[in-house]
Amino acid sequence: MKKVVVVGGGVAAKGFASAALALHDNIEVTIIKNEKRSPVPCGIPYAFGTLKDANDNISSDQGLIDNGLKLVINDVTEIDRENKTVTLKDDSKVNYDKLVISTGSLPVLPPFKGINLEGIHVIKKDLDDVVELRKKVEAAKSIVIVGGGFIGVELADEIKKLGNKNITLVELAPHVLNVAFESDISEEIEANLTKKDIRIATGIAVESFKGNEKVEKVVLNNGEELDADIVFLSIGAYPNTKLADACGLKVERAGVIVDDFQKTSDESIFAIGDCASKQDLFSDDYSRVRLASIAAKEGRNAAYNLFENKRVLAPVGICNLFSTYIDGKYYAATGMTKAQCEAAGFEVIQIEQSAHDRHPITLPNTRKIDGKFFFDKESMLLLGAQLSGPQLVAEVINSVGIAVQNKATAYDIYAYNYASHPMGTASPNKYIMHQAGLKALKVIK
Amino acid sequence: MKKVVVVGGGVAAKGFASAALALHDNIEVTIIKNEKRSPVPCGIPYAFGTLKDANDNISSDQGLIDNGLKLVINDVTEIDRENKTVTLKDDSKVNYDKLVISTGSLPVLPPFKGINLEGIHVIKKDLDDVVELRKKVEAAKSIVIVGGGFIGVELADEIKKLGNKNITLVELAPHVLNVAFESDISEEIEANLTKKDIRIATGIAVESFKGNEKVEKVVLNNGEELDADIVFLSIGAYPNTKLADACGLKVERAGVIVDDFQKTSDESIFAIGDCASKQDLFSDDYSRVRLASIAAKEGRNAAYNLFENKRVLAPVGICNLFSTYIDGKYYAATGMTKAQCEAAGFEVIQIEQSAHDRHPITLPNTRKIDGKFFFDKESMLLLGAQLSGPQLVAEVINSVGIAVQNKATAYDIYAYNYASHPMGTASPNKYIMHQAGLKALKVIK
Repeated sequence: MKKVVVVGGGVAAKGFASAALALHDNIEVTIIKNEKRSPVPCGIPYAFGTLKDANDNISSDQGLIDNGLKLVINDVTEIDRENKTVTLKDDSKVNYDKLVISTGSLPVLPPFKGINLEGIHVIKKDLDDVVELRKKVEAAKSIVIVGGGFIGVELADEIKKLGNKNITLVELAPHVLNVAFESDISEEIEANLTKKDIRIATGIAVESFKGNEKVEKVVLNNGEELDADIVFLSIGAYPNTKLADACGLKVERAGVIVDDFQKTSDESIFAIGDCASKQDLFSDDYSRVRLASIAAKEGRNAAYNLFENKRVLAPVGICNLFSTYIDGKYYAATGMTKAQCEAAGFEVIQIEQSAHDRHPITLPNTRKIDGKFFFDKESMLLLGAQLSGPQLVAEVINSVGIAVQNKATAYDIYAYNYASHPMGTASPNKYIMHQAGLKALKVIK
Repeated sequence: MKKVVVVGGGVAAKGFASAALALHDNIEVTIIKNEKRSPVPCGIPYAFGTLKDANDNISSDQGLIDNGLKLVINDVTEIDRENKTVTLKDDSKVNYDKLVISTGSLPVLPPFKGINLEGIHVIKKDLDDVVELRKKVEAAKSIVIVGGGFIGVELADEIKKLGNKNITLVELAPHVLNVAFESDISEEIEANLTKKDIRIATGIAVESFKGNEKVEKVVLNNGEELDADIVFLSIGAYPNTKLADACGLKVERAGVIVDDFQKTSDESIFAIGDCASKQDLFSDDYSRVRLASIAAKEGRNAAYNLFENKRVLAPVGICNLFSTYIDGKYYAATGMTKAQCEAAGFEVIQIEQSAHDRHPITLPNTRKIDGKFFFDKESMLLLGAQLSGPQLVAEVINSVGIAVQNKATAYDIYAYNYASHPMGTASPNKYIMHQAGLKALKVIK
């Protein structure tokens, strides 16, 4: 019986455990995590609005336990590589044949004056914490969210569903979500949130927090002071590499350094998820993107290659599949934004393409999907795409993403077969992907 | 100015014309077709129910005309390859530099006694015909549909929406839609239609039609006689190769024989859509599958390679992307059924995998997608998939289809990045494609 110990219980850990238990006989998989109840991490914003009860945002471990997982609620304080053990808080030790480090990421805490005042929160991946926080949000009148990334924007949109509250979203960059979307998409999102009476303060920095024990004001760099009963800090996260570092594994700013099999500098230790280094599909450079979907993929990779380097599961690099849901509309992206393409040295062809989800469009409930596609002018490689519209968008982005991961060009997406049905898609001559390919080919004709 | 003449005005013709006008300067594209108004072909069943007015099922030519298309409503009676002209019904001639044959397919007319009685109809791709037919259907009490393929099943489901009519669907095979789906899926569809009081008579052949000028009875091979005011024949179609044959182009039962550029045995003549030969992605054999989405793809291919063999647009073969909508539920398939895989010599791993479209599944309006996936046991090549559920299915099948067209294996679909969002997809550890891959890898572990 091989003993496999996983430190951390998030998405990567659970994806790993699920696959490892399926793929290997005679193993014992133990997850050691410090939260009694884990939330669905990406579901946390929805625990503040759409879900009636924040407790419903649970990521249950029961299915894994039923499949044989051993679950230990405790803190790992040390990894002893020589003796292949981990030490728990109570100094007890657990030995392993293979260790999987899945310690996630930690929220960035800016060095603002007053940061330690009561009422200033980061999002912790702990369901009990989320439940407590929702109660506080329900009681609050004025809420300031610092950081206009996915969590910040989704939180603002969701909290508004709890009733009439003063919500301000402060973002340093000129636009929210600029890591994934072009400015005009961000502007649409900002306008929709503004219409719902959420204040979007972009291009503005927070300077400090004021209050007496409890936060009362958020001071901005334009001199303004915002009332705040609660402040959320969602300005990013960095790999939690503390344990890995302490035991001498190779660690950089990019995370615990792993190879194509998720293996660290120690043959017996893997790292997966937010704590692990990851490389960009196009540049092969380290990527700073951290997503649950990437964590899950890395868990599957480690599980497959757990006892030997069986197979490089291609592609190794990540292609940044973002999805979100704001004000009732879906937005999704893959690959690079135009600015990212250009920073990587590509000469970009940008294509705008829309398509309906039924045909003829006289059919009831026909809706529209809008898209942007980016190609490299020389190779015609598909570099990225951004879509918005109904829920279908959350799946169309996977078609584009699979094409991107297969290094598809404009020629390929123009040539592929696509499914077509009156009640389900655009007409066979108007599907969004091949029409985007056509427009790109037209540019270079 | 190069003159490009297209014979036929269906999906392939319009896809070709749209792309050719975009990709080439100094061309004149003329479509010659004999229907004044073209319907959306796959939309025809929905013109008998969901659409309030059958006229709304129009595939307008106006967009193409605005882009420079010349449209001629006439019949082409002859192709003169030597003089590069086509002759119209009135003996006038139109010359061409490049000719595109897009004459579609013709419905199979079985040699049943009484087949010429009034009231027995095939589906013609002519909107005026559809509008007339809808009036007759509205007035009819008893309707018999012969043939349980996509058109037959969709027609039965749609006509039922027009009110209380006796509808019987007769299918020779043991199950409807058996070209695309496993028996249990077909059985679900049959049960749902039966619940709506549509009679499904499978494993039964039609012997003859009875009536006095007008059809009154459909005689089955079990001796039963069904009342019928209207009969629809939807038992298949064959390539309309008459013009191509008459002018000496290479023609087989598979259609007008074309190369990888859609070019016929004459350098100046292309064939696209239902009339053209097509090859299966897996076997490279001729395929009998005829779909609008394939026609559209072939139109794009011919348009790109119109004046020189510029580029083989990969993949050449077709991967059978079927989608339908029956009793409010979507069904889609790609690649081969299990029986088709086995007939092609593969040893099949069959995987059943479901996934929800939101996570946690406590979110409101969470729905389920069910799937079947087929892999070759030796190479682990993904050979086919069948999905059912909400409209998302019509897009998820494209993700699977793009994977199939990239010759993805179980390893690949296990390894890909997939987008994930609480309001849009399954949890990152439960997405349908990688979980199907996992189960397949588990089988061969």
